Amino acid sequence: MSKKVLIIGGVAGGASAAARLRRLDEHAQIILLERDEHISFANCGLPYYIGETIQDREKLLVQTPKGMQDRFNIDVRVNSEVTALHPERKTVTIHSTTKGIYEESYDALILSPGAKPIKPPIPGIDSKKIFTLRNIPDTDRIKKQVDLEDIQRAVVIGGGYIGVEMAENLKERGMEVTLVEAAPHILAPFDSDMVAMMEKELEENGVRLLLNDGVKAFQEKSTGLDVVLSSGTTLTADLVILAIGVAPDTSFVKESGIHLGARGHILVNDHMETSIPDIYAVGDAIEVRDFVNEQGAAIPLAGPANKQGRIVADNIAGISSTFKGTQGTSIIKVFSLTGATTGNNERNLKRLGLPYQVVYVHPFSHATYYPGALQLSLKLLFNGEGRILGAQGIGIEGIDKSIDVIATTMRLSGTIYDLTELELAYAPPYSSAKDPVNMLGFAAENILANRTEVFTYETLQEYDQEHTILLDVRSPLEFANGHLDGAINIPLDTLRQRLSELDKDKLILAYCKMGLQGYLASRILLQNGFKVKNMTGGFKSASIFFP
Amino acid sequence: MSKKVLIIGGVAGGASAAARLRRLDEHAQIILLERDEHISFANCGLPYYIGETIQDREKLLVQTPKGMQDRFNIDVRVNSEVTALHPERKTVTIHSTTKGIYEESYDALILSPGAKPIKPPIPGIDSKKIFTLRNIPDTDRIKKQVDLEDIQRAVVIGGGYIGVEMAENLKERGMEVTLVEAAPHILAPFDSDMVAMMEKELEENGVRLLLNDGVKAFQEKSTGLDVVLSSGTTLTADLVILAIGVAPDTSFVKESGIHLGARGHILVNDHMETSIPDIYAVGDAIEVRDFVNEQGAAIPLAGPANKQGRIVADNIAGISSTFKGTQGTSIIKVFSLTGATTGNNERNLKRLGLPYQVVYVHPFSHATYYPGALQLSLKLLFNGEGRILGAQGIGIEGIDKSIDVIATTMRLSGTIYDLTELELAYAPPYSSAKDPVNMLGFAAENILANRTEVFTYETLQEYDQEHTILLDVRSPLEFANGHLDGAINIPLDTLRQRLSELDKDKLILAYCKMGLQGYLASRILLQNGFKVKNMTGGFKSASIFFP
Ligand SMILES: Cc1cc2nc3c(=O)[nH]c(=O)nc-3n(C[C@H](O)[C@H](O)[C@H](O)COP(=O)(O)OP(=O)(O)OC[C@H]3O[C@@H](n4cnc5c(N)ncnc54)[C@H](O)[C@@H]3O)c2cc1C
Ligand SMILES: Cc1cc2nc3c(=O)[nH]c(=O)nc-3n(C[C@H](O)[C@H](O)[C@H](O)COP(=O)(O)OP(=O)(O)OC[C@H]3O[C@@H](n4cnc5c(N)ncnc54)[C@H](O)[C@@H]3O)c2cc1C
Ligand SMILES: CC(C)(COP(=O)(O)OP(=O)(O)OC[C@H]1O[C@@H](n2cnc3c(N)ncnc32)[C@H](O)[C@@H]1OP(=O)(O)O)[C@@H](O)C(=O)NCCC(=O)NCCS
Ligand SMILES: CC(C)(COP(=O)(O)OP(=O)(O)OC[C@H]1O[C@@H](n2cnc3c(N)ncnc32)[C@H](O)[C@@H]1OP(=O)(O)O)[C@@H](O)C(=O)NCCC(=O)NCCS
Repeated sequence: MSKKVLIIGGVAGGASAAARLRRLDEHAQIILLERDEHISFANCGLPYYIGETIQDREKLLVQTPKGMQDRFNIDVRVNSEVTALHPERKTVTIHSTTKGIYEESYDALILSPGAKPIKPPIPGIDSKKIFTLRNIPDTDRIKKQVDLEDIQRAVVIGGGYIGVEMAENLKERGMEVTLVEAAPHILAPFDSDMVAMMEKELEENGVRLLLNDGVKAFQEKSTGLDVVLSSGTTLTADLVILAIGVAPDTSFVKESGIHLGARGHILVNDHMETSIPDIYAVGDAIEVRDFVNEQGAAIPLAGPANKQGRIVADNIAGISSTFKGTQGTSIIKVFSLTGATTGNNERNLKRLGLPYQVVYVHPFSHATYYPGALQLSLKLLFNGEGRILGAQGIGIEGIDKSIDVIATTMRLSGTIYDLTELELAYAPPYSSAKDPVNMLGFAAENILANRTEVFTYETLQEYDQEHTILLDVRSPLEFANGHLDGAINIPLDTLRQRLSELDKDKLILAYCKMGLQGYLASRILLQNGFKVKNMTGGFKSASIFFP
Repeated sequence: MSKKVLIIGGVAGGASAAARLRRLDEHAQIILLERDEHISFANCGLPYYIGETIQDREKLLVQTPKGMQDRFNIDVRVNSEVTALHPERKTVTIHSTTKGIYEESYDALILSPGAKPIKPPIPGIDSKKIFTLRNIPDTDRIKKQVDLEDIQRAVVIGGGYIGVEMAENLKERGMEVTLVEAAPHILAPFDSDMVAMMEKELEENGVRLLLNDGVKAFQEKSTGLDVVLSSGTTLTADLVILAIGVAPDTSFVKESGIHLGARGHILVNDHMETSIPDIYAVGDAIEVRDFVNEQGAAIPLAGPANKQGRIVADNIAGISSTFKGTQGTSIIKVFSLTGATTGNNERNLKRLGLPYQVVYVHPFSHATYYPGALQLSLKLLFNGEGRILGAQGIGIEGIDKSIDVIATTMRLSGTIYDLTELELAYAPPYSSAKDPVNMLGFAAENILANRTEVFTYETLQEYDQEHTILLDVRSPLEFANGHLDGAINIPLDTLRQRLSELDKDKLILAYCKMGLQGYLASRILLQNGFKVKNMTGGFKSASIFFP
């Protein structure tokens, strides 16, 4: 007898599960229940449709209910909201706009309801000028507003991925855009150092950034909607995008007895099974295991949701597949910049008390003698055993490649030593004989082997000035064009001749342009009996703090 | 007492070893011996300087003898050819254009003499119109010719990486270019299927290709240099580039007693030690272990040479580093196309009798709903245990990324199952929620799990037509626009309704556009009791054989 499988939620996790399940079991009865009118749409494309980079609305609809029926023989029921689960009798209650309220039974049930934008009870939050962005109807509503000629002033609340993408896309539509972020920096998956370049990019493209500031109230005025901030600043907006984060869309699950996490996420094992037999869950609504720190985490991203959808179908069809946790690998375009990250950032590692070391390199996207090479800024976090804990990259070209290679290394339990050995594709238009990722490995290895000690710009103020020498090993011209306060200049290539100018009793803090020459200087000094540290990433890393 | 280290060859392997050795040992005496006038030049950039993509000759000189002296305190001796090794007294004989002939002693000796272009004894080979390309003097000579106005007809002999790059760059300079290759296809690291697109790209850009043809003789004529081919064809050229491969530049080693391989390569262990104590060798001149098939191999590439240079320095400085074999990861730009490969190709696997399976996918460089997505063609070779044996990719964008991720997976002993789980960076401008590499993993996994059987276009003629049905599951319009001979058309979305039209006693060979719909069809048919195989990569893979 064929299995009857109900799936709640018809987009990334749900539709992927449905398609895979059909491929595995031609005879199962598969019913896809979707509250909304659309299934299988491109959530991730929505900001770009509003920004008109994506011009054709049809393109957002990756699959239609009819397409899904024809291709996969799925019983797709849109405008059908599941309001309650009844595990004791293996049914769910459905509110359909056409068929009314009814119960439907299941042999197996998959929950993929996703996450909904957080809407805190701020005074005035229900204004018609305030929008959130999750699905096609939201998109249509926002786009309709933006298309109106007299809509010019936009305020985006929240500097996460969606907030930043919306700020960029509204700017692309010619609006005045202010982005308000309560934290000291936008884009929390990145550390404050790396994110500074993206903040600069936003500002250079005309997006006004207000950091360390939150919304206290919204007030309708004849001139527009006033956005009153904690700092006292008031912005007036024609349109507000609220993008301060998402919460699992799991209210219908609450009464079912399924175990939920502290913030309402559905808890599952690595076969995607919830605490109740025959009920599975995937996607933004679940808590996953962080691959690096082994803690519970909520990672609302499409890659994991799609993969989990495939894995849950496997398990229901009798194939034992497991989801082995997520690294949170993610990427964002900020005008011409790309930022990408994988694993944990410093903030996380500090919070969890996990020991780590940092290294920065600033290699080029390909051989510098071939035209068009663009500089990357890469940051690697690793521990004393060489385990890679996380990596972040910012640049114009090749960031996705470097971060993907590191994410792959991490997934396969590779270490920084493996990074040094990776054999990556090199010809002048594509990379360098020592790939950026090899360079990260070399630099990290040298630290772990105690061949060089590093310090970060961030910690510079911690040093006792009386007992340290700040040594700039760049050229006199570079030095003259700007250097760190209190530094003396001995260019690298003259260092061997000028050792006598330095005091062996002091700690020498060396720095250069990118970290390489300072490393060379540190090796010369160390082997001549000096105490020395090199500023990892050099002046370039220092300057990404004040880009 | 400090060590005295001699290094023979001052470019990729030699200069890298010198620099690393100095970093590790400030007090070693390091002497770099180079036959040529330049060290540390960008071999890989030479074709692009001739083609004037790289305009500034200075850029080719990554380090100068003076720079190397100042920065690394290396005793650089150019115009100094080592003509003999004397391991018994630990010296080498040097022929210097300025200092005459002398011996120099060593505690440790590093050989990095590289490989030289093969010049077979073809009649007329010594013509002044015939050039090979290895170093800066070669480059200057060729460029001087190309810069002459009356030089218009170029013939490139040999379709390896250097030959193809030269063909492209001479074409960029407006010449008439013919590329002659003795094998049935150019670019031997690729299989014939994948390379066809690159051959087409060359031809579409005006490079004339003559395959399956070799040079019999060169004859000076008043009209130019006649290149007489085995087929009888005669080409007349103003300039001939001979690029039929390289051989280890090891004649000075021959008398030393150092063990050499069958083709003259220096044999080393994984610490880069030759058969004679204190003599090490790296780079193009050595035989390495193929990471996939464990056989000896010659891989004349800059990435391995640079890494080996670093490893040899480590070992001399007392750090036990090993080189763990090479995958031959490589990449080439062919006008607007990129081709990249890692591991073994089918030709190799067949030759070695290693069992393998093939899968093709043709995903896009990023989400198709976001503008600018470009199609990739990826081929994966793997065995029954899921071990990845090799991968090849052709496309316009993202090929380097996919091949690097697969190369990383291979290096860390990841399998096709790991490919399905890789968590790669996704946002619409960069990839898809299921990355191209995940797709390769999915498709391979389905084959190994016997969820689908595949056949390749190449094997189509092997099937007994009487007992097979060739089934095209694309749309009627696609079918009408071109299909495989003898195919019948049942579009995928109608297949479930039209099963009765098919004969259960016959083997159904299904195909679609890219392999995905054929896979879906194969699942429907299989579960309905049919015998079926899907053409991996679909019509797209078929058409890359006749692009
Ligand atoms: C604007 C935007 C941009 C994004 N950009 C990216 C990106 O660049 N990269 C990336 O990796 N991720 C991105 N994401 C995140 C990604 O879209 C999600 O991680 C992914 O869609 C989650 O899949 P899911 O199946 O869990 O939930 P969803 O895709 O949200 O699907 C859940 C569906 O369930 C339905 N539903 C909920 N409750 C019920 C119920 N009770 N009954 C019936 N139906 C119900 C909802 O209507 C919804 O359609 C973006 C998301 C948004 C909103
Ligand atoms: C045109 C061209 C394009 C290339 N493109 C790429 C590419 O895109 N990607 C890639 O990975 N690789 C590429 N390569 C290959 C790459 O350059 C080599 O793999 C690498 O340079 C090998 O390093 P090596 O140190 O072994 O030899 P080399 O770099 O060749 O250096 C050897 C040096 O030793 C000197 N020498 C030899 N014998 C003696 C002696 N007896 N005494 C003193 N000196 C001696 C030679 O003069 C030479 O300068 C290319 C090579 C060429 C020629
Ligand atoms: C449209 C949708 C239902 C498709 O689901 P899907 O069929 O599982 O996914 P794809 O179309 O990518 O196809 C993947 C399948 O094709 C197979 N495949 C792909 N290329 C193939 C090829 N050349 N040969 C053989 N098989 C191939 C894969 O193996 C995989 O099958 P499997 O899971 O059985 O192994 C689902 O992806 C969806 O709803 N997407 C939109 C929502 C979304 O993801 N939003 C977030 C991102 S914006
Ligand atoms: C120029 C040349 C001598 C430089 O050799 P090198 O100093 O070893 O190489 P790089 O300049 O790339 O520097 C790499 C070193 O800098 C370190 N480094 C790079 N960026 C760093 C950073 N930001 N912080 C600290 N260290 C850094 C690396 O760790 C590595 O040092 P290590 O080997 O001691 O670990 C050599 O690469 C060469 O001759 N190249 C031209 C020839 C050639 O390769 N041709 C083929 C390709 S076209």
